[in-house]
Amino acid sequence: MGQTTEETQANADSVCLLETNIDDAGGELVGSVTEKLFKHGALDVFSTPIYMKRSRPAVQISVICKVEDAQLLEQILFREGLTFGVRRQILQRSKLAREFVTVETEFGKIRIKTGTLDGKIVNAKPEFSDCVSAAKKHNVAVKAVLDAAMAAYRRKF
Amino acid sequence: MGQTTEETQANADSVCLLETNIDDAGGELVGSVTEKLFKHGALDVFSTPIYMKRSRPAVQISVICKVEDAQLLEQILFREGLTFGVRRQILQRSKLAREFVTVETEFGKIRIKTGTLDGKIVNAKPEFSDCVSAAKKHNVAVKAVLDAAMAAYRRKF
Amino acid sequence: MGQTTEETQANADSVCLLETNIDDAGGELVGSVTEKLFKHGALDVFSTPIYMKRSRPAVQISVICKVEDAQLLEQILFREGLTFGVRRQILQRSKLAREFVTVETEFGKIRIKTGTLDGKIVNAKPEFSDCVSAAKKHNVAVKAVLDAAMAAYRRKF
Amino acid sequence: MGQTTEETQANADSVCLLETNIDDAGGELVGSVTEKLFKHGALDVFSTPIYMKRSRPAVQISVICKVEDAQLLEQILFREGLTFGVRRQILQRSKLAREFVTVETEFGKIRIKTGTLDGKIVNAKPEFSDCVSAAKKHNVAVKAVLDAAMAAYRRKF
Amino acid sequence: MGQTTEETQANADSVCLLETNIDDAGGELVGSVTEKLFKHGALDVFSTPIYMKRSRPAVQISVICKVEDAQLLEQILFREGLTFGVRRQILQRSKLAREFVTVETEFGKIRIKTGTLDGKIVNAKPEFSDCVSAAKKHNVAVKAVLDAAMAAYRRKF
Amino acid sequence: MGQTTEETQANADSVCLLETNIDDAGGELVGSVTEKLFKHGALDVFSTPIYMKRSRPAVQISVICKVEDAQLLEQILFREGLTFGVRRQILQRSKLAREFVTVETEFGKIRIKTGTLDGKIVNAKPEFSDCVSAAKKHNVAVKAVLDAAMAAYRRKF
Repeated sequence: MGQTTEETQANADSVCLLETNIDDAGGELVGSVTEKLFKHGALDVFSTPIYMKRSRPAVQISVICKVEDAQLLEQILFREGLTFGVRRQILQRSKLAREFVTVETEFGKIRIKTGTLDGKIVNAKPEFSDCVSAAKKHNVAVKAVLDAAMAAYRRKF
Repeated sequence: MGQTTEETQANADSVCLLETNIDDAGGELVGSVTEKLFKHGALDVFSTPIYMKRSRPAVQISVICKVEDAQLLEQILFREGLTFGVRRQILQRSKLAREFVTVETEFGKIRIKTGTLDGKIVNAKPEFSDCVSAAKKHNVAVKAVLDAAMAAYRRKF
Repeated sequence: MGQTTEETQANADSVCLLETNIDDAGGELVGSVTEKLFKHGALDVFSTPIYMKRSRPAVQISVICKVEDAQLLEQILFREGLTFGVRRQILQRSKLAREFVTVETEFGKIRIKTGTLDGKIVNAKPEFSDCVSAAKKHNVAVKAVLDAAMAAYRRKF
Repeated sequence: MGQTTEETQANADSVCLLETNIDDAGGELVGSVTEKLFKHGALDVFSTPIYMKRSRPAVQISVICKVEDAQLLEQILFREGLTFGVRRQILQRSKLAREFVTVETEFGKIRIKTGTLDGKIVNAKPEFSDCVSAAKKHNVAVKAVLDAAMAAYRRKF
Repeated sequence: MGQTTEETQANADSVCLLETNIDDAGGELVGSVTEKLFKHGALDVFSTPIYMKRSRPAVQISVICKVEDAQLLEQILFREGLTFGVRRQILQRSKLAREFVTVETEFGKIRIKTGTLDGKIVNAKPEFSDCVSAAKKHNVAVKAVLDAAMAAYRRKF
Repeated sequence: MGQTTEETQANADSVCLLETNIDDAGGELVGSVTEKLFKHGALDVFSTPIYMKRSRPAVQISVICKVEDAQLLEQILFREGLTFGVRRQILQRSKLAREFVTVETEFGKIRIKTGTLDGKIVNAKPEFSDCVSAAKKHNVAVKAVLDAAMAAYRRKF
């Protein structure tokens, strides 16, 4: 219990943020393109509800990616017929050093992602997919597994 | 200045609320159908951003109308190809008794809508369209006209 | 091409709407419970971003279901630890009579869902899952398949 | 540790939902009226961002209250000058039976609200205000107290 | 049918993004200023619902414009009394090469905007205003014209 | 009445914008951290509802601050356990020159914040906290005080 499975140094890097406003495609298409963007390396994809002119509800699609992947992902937005224009900027990003530990719970092993700042762990969260799998296997609520995993983590650390 | 141009008694009535979720039409179409609903008697039409399954951004269209107009407006939602299903319910509604008074400002006459509860005026607001017209004519900010109208109203009442 | 594979009469029925406000659970858990609700018979599940007291962003979860499924789905909301209270109401619902036809496109067969009002087809939309599958198989944009399916449908009907 | 301080039976009751759309008041005023509604017995008050005609961003204010408080709260909405009309409906509500237990943590005593369905505890959450107070006193993150409280609760129950 | 009426080269350029948060003006005023911004050269104006401190619903106004128009549009935001501060940044933008073609439909001529990437058309959409006009003239749903225009476009290209 | 109590020159400066997406923390925690950020020098903190993958409702937290405060505020986001990563950028900001004047109303003295552009006052708004205090003291609606303050301001200037 509690063995280290991965380690990343705390660091700062640059990421690219692509944005485009969509008022002429349905939400189904937006959802489908979102999945494609993740498959091609997007670090994160999210949508923001916005209001455009003439009472038009719309969404802003935001894609966060490595600078070297920006052109490919921008082309996916274009090739999927989602938009005629994409805005782009570079952002600085700070990240906690991440480390995974594994805890034993009554529902099996669950990985905990921890985040370290200046040598001190300041954040810890159970891997959500582990909790979903365990909840299905044991036929309990996902929240029960989340709580059990955090309690097990606290007993150890 | 300040003459009464309309009077409505405070009252309670019933209205119909139609709702439908749209995840397969663009915002342009939603905006266009909204205008059509107003032309056919909708008392109010508004959209709420919602989240549907599979990362699909969507909107819920809400139409408030007289009970006797519900069927016609529901058919517009259907005939415009916006949806395959519409939810419907009856709501009670309370309204302030409304009265319009006209005030003189440096930008011309502006109507003020007042609302009365138990014989006391509890709300007053300049007619927005009057302010927009006056602002264009005098080439000033709409907010300047709004403020002038409220100040004129307060001097009188 | 164009054969009928399913037919439903236009009709009006009643559905149940369950609603609950969530300000103490993360979005991951909300997403996971949403899937469970669909598996247990929910007709639709959607979330609306809302603002609660003390600067708390939150979501309202709405579940539309058959009246006879309401109690089971309400219990899922409770058993998953999502909430301490659920609001419930009955809504009337109008639906277009639905019929599926199949069209041939350069990307294979795609089903089209049509909606009929007073004997006239007023809405038609390609089955989104068919388009996604065909797009993957032919390595084209989903939108290209959607457009091809609609064009094939219009040539025939 | 773990003593019962309050007990409520699981039950179903009726609540009133008041709703009004605001597109002519600023968010500051909405926030201020929200606090007043809570002070006069509102069970919950929340706002939903909506889109109204002519590119107007707006909010829908929703007030959940006991049926006998509806008229007073409706009058507050009117008297504060927020609106000219309020919609109203009665909703059914199901609630978990609630019980508070107190746990000892390294940050002091924290109350846990539990919810019971069919004799089984299905939900438990630390009282947020207790966690905020303890976090201030011990100069730690609120989340650290939340996690400690849940872990203490799980050790005991 | 299908004649070219306009041609633009694919290109990348820089645009200015102005942003300001509004919590003390009503949605009516926001809608009215939005129209003024468009008239003075804004390329796009949109609003995003946001949450501010003390339960205040608000909107963020975003104005996308040419770099040389930024100062004029910023002054409109100020002069209309909407805000005391405006944030500003420069973004890169990629655009598809745009070309308009005209198609014949049963509802008359409709322009189609196409977008080209690396010499291949990757997006095409009917001009929405053309469809609205044709729908009014022929008393049909706007969606019927949109679908007819896309089908006509696909037969030709 | 109308005496100047503060004066700031119109100017342009740079601010830092910190952003992070939260889908694994409840709204209660977000609200609580928001207050802490304000206490440690944030110029503004707001949240935007966003849609993340797998039907996950989420919020984007935005913190606007002086460039020299960015590191401290970023560390608060980390230390409170809200996130594993924060994005950062520098924005230009234009501000109206601000000046406070005090007006006499039937509800006591109220400060008015004015904003000047090119030597002309283009915006004026009552200090909201003054209006809330006066409304409580005189047991009237906050809106009544807001309106009275603006009317008093207009009579003088």
